[in-house]
Amino acid sequence: MAQLKEAKPVWVTGAGGFIGLHLSRFLAGVGHHVLGFGRSEAPGFAAATGGAFFSGGVTARTMDAALASHGRPAAVYHLAGGATVGQSIADPLKDFEQSVVSAACVLDFLRRHAPDASVVLASSAAVYGGGHFGPIRVDAALDPYSPYGYHKRMVEELGRSYCAAYGQLVSVARLFSVYGEGLRKQLLWDLCGMLAAGETDIVLGGTGTEMRDWHHVSDVVRLIHRILPAGEPRFTVYNGGAGAPASVSTISRMVLEAWGGNHRLSFSGKSRRGDPVNLISDPSGVPEGLQLQVPLSRGIAGYVDWYRAEILAEPVGHLRRSAP
Amino acid sequence: MAQLKEAKPVWVTGAGGFIGLHLSRFLAGVGHHVLGFGRSEAPGFAAATGGAFFSGGVTARTMDAALASHGRPAAVYHLAGGATVGQSIADPLKDFEQSVVSAACVLDFLRRHAPDASVVLASSAAVYGGGHFGPIRVDAALDPYSPYGYHKRMVEELGRSYCAAYGQLVSVARLFSVYGEGLRKQLLWDLCGMLAAGETDIVLGGTGTEMRDWHHVSDVVRLIHRILPAGEPRFTVYNGGAGAPASVSTISRMVLEAWGGNHRLSFSGKSRRGDPVNLISDPSGVPEGLQLQVPLSRGIAGYVDWYRAEILAEPVGHLRRSAP
Repeated sequence: MAQLKEAKPVWVTGAGGFIGLHLSRFLAGVGHHVLGFGRSEAPGFAAATGGAFFSGGVTARTMDAALASHGRPAAVYHLAGGATVGQSIADPLKDFEQSVVSAACVLDFLRRHAPDASVVLASSAAVYGGGHFGPIRVDAALDPYSPYGYHKRMVEELGRSYCAAYGQLVSVARLFSVYGEGLRKQLLWDLCGMLAAGETDIVLGGTGTEMRDWHHVSDVVRLIHRILPAGEPRFTVYNGGAGAPASVSTISRMVLEAWGGNHRLSFSGKSRRGDPVNLISDPSGVPEGLQLQVPLSRGIAGYVDWYRAEILAEPVGHLRRSAP
Repeated sequence: MAQLKEAKPVWVTGAGGFIGLHLSRFLAGVGHHVLGFGRSEAPGFAAATGGAFFSGGVTARTMDAALASHGRPAAVYHLAGGATVGQSIADPLKDFEQSVVSAACVLDFLRRHAPDASVVLASSAAVYGGGHFGPIRVDAALDPYSPYGYHKRMVEELGRSYCAAYGQLVSVARLFSVYGEGLRKQLLWDLCGMLAAGETDIVLGGTGTEMRDWHHVSDVVRLIHRILPAGEPRFTVYNGGAGAPASVSTISRMVLEAWGGNHRLSFSGKSRRGDPVNLISDPSGVPEGLQLQVPLSRGIAGYVDWYRAEILAEPVGHLRRSAP
C-alpha cells in the first residue's frame, strides 16, 4: 500500500452509489485523496471525502478531466455498473453499457495513461448462477442467470485480458448480498417501506427459504480495500462474501423484530425471474485474516435505525427546511 | 430454411470484409434478399448480390434504416468484428468496440424488433488459446491468448445471454484459419507479396511447425449457412474447422510450388506475440454431413491464381483505366 501514501489520487467509479459512497468515505478516512466518478451529481461527495466528483459517467472525457487536474491515479476501484438484475432483464443494452463498456473504458484509459495503477473490479455472485446448493467456491463453474450476471462476467474477462496482455494489476471482488445504511433497494428497503406504510400483514415474494450471504457494507469496503493488488502483475478473483448465510425469512424476521410491533409475515411462493435459490460464499475465496466486524443482528438493527432516522425523517426535514 | 424463402431479407454484418463478401454472394446465389452492413462503402456489393449495403458500421442508425426500407430480417449473420490479433493488441478498445459492442447492438436490436430472427455469430478458434496440442474439441476449456480472443469469447457470451433471457436462436461458428480469394492479410498474402516482389530468399517468422486448420472460404460459407438455427430457442457452438491440418511450412511450400520458380524458404524461429503453436479443430464440433469441397492443394493453387490475376494486375488495370 506504500505507493498510495503519495500524493497520487485514488479513483472510485460509481462513487455516487451505495457501496461507492461508503468506499469513498473509507478511503478518505485512511488518508487517500479520493476522486469520484458517477452518472449523476453527488452533492455530498466533496463534503464527505474532501475530494472532487466527476459527473457524466466514467468516460474518456471525465477521466481526461481528472487526469489533467489531479494527475495519474495510483489505484482505481471500479464500482460503476448496472443497478439490478431486474433492470438488466428490462434493458440489457443499457446494463451492458453501464457495466461492460465502462470497464473497457477504464481499463483502456489506464493502459494508456497509468499502466502502473492497481485496479479492483466489482463483480457479483450473479456470475455463479442459480445451480449451486452449498457454499460456492471461488473456482466454481460460472453459469450466470441474467444479463446482469453475464455482463459482470464480461467485466471480469476484460480485467483478465488486460492483465495478460499489458501486465495490469487487477483484482476482482465477487460481491454477494451487500446491505447497510444508504441502500435504497432490495429486500431490506422494500420491507422497511411496508412497515413505514403501516402494513401489518407483510407478504413477500419467493418462499423465504432462499439463502443469501449477507455482508455489511462496512465489511465489504474493508475487503475491497484489502484486495487492491500490488507488486507483480496478476489477476486474482475474490469471493466478497461474509460467510454468514441466512434465509430471507430469517432476515425478514430480524427486521420486524428491530422495527417492533406486531406483524404477520408470509411468502407468496412465487419467485422473481432470475432469482437463484442459494447464493452463499465459501470461505475459500475470501481474503485471509479479514474478520467480519458487523454481525448480522447488529447490521440489521443499524439499517432499521438508519431507515427511521433518515428516510422517515426526510419529508419532515423537508418541511422544516421549507418553513421559515 | 423455409422461412428464409419469404420476402424477408437476411442481414450480413461485416459484409464488406473477406468472409462477409463471400457469404453475401453465396446467400444471394441461393435466392436470398441480402442486406449488407459494413464500416466503409463496399462498391461491388450491390452488383454482386442484388442487395443494398449500409455503411457506417452496424449501429442503431444503420439497422433502423434497413428495417424501415426492407422490413424485419429473417436471419442475421454477424461477421463484423476486429480485424486481427495484432491490431487487438495495439488498440484493444477499438477491437472491443468493433467486436463486442457491435454484437451487443445487433442482439439488442433483434430483441426489440425481430425476436424471431435466427442469428449466427462469427467467433474464432482464438477463444481456445494456445495451450492445446492436439485437435480441439468444441467443449474444450477456453483460455484466450489475446484481446481479440477475449473479445470473441465475450461475443459468444452475449449470444448465450440473449438466448437464455429472451429465447433468441443463436449459433456460434468458431472459425479457424479461413483462406481463399479476396484475403488480403496473413500468411498467404504476405508470402505472395514477397514472391511478387521478386524475393528468392523467403524468411518467415515462427518455426514453420505451427499447425493450423486451413479452411477454404467457400467451405466456411457453406458451414455458416448450414448452422443457422431454426425451431426451438437454443444456443449452439460449432467448430468452424476443416479438420485438414497442415503446418505453416507445408502450406508455404505449397504456395511456392504453385507460384513456380526457385526459392529458398526458412524460418526465423521468432514467434509473434499471441501466436499459439497449434490450432486444429476436432471434428466433434463441426456440423455433421458437411463435406469439405475444396482440398488444400486446390485451394492454395486457386489463391495464387487469384493473387496473380487480381492483385498483380491491379496497377496495370489502374493505368489502363487512367489512360484514355
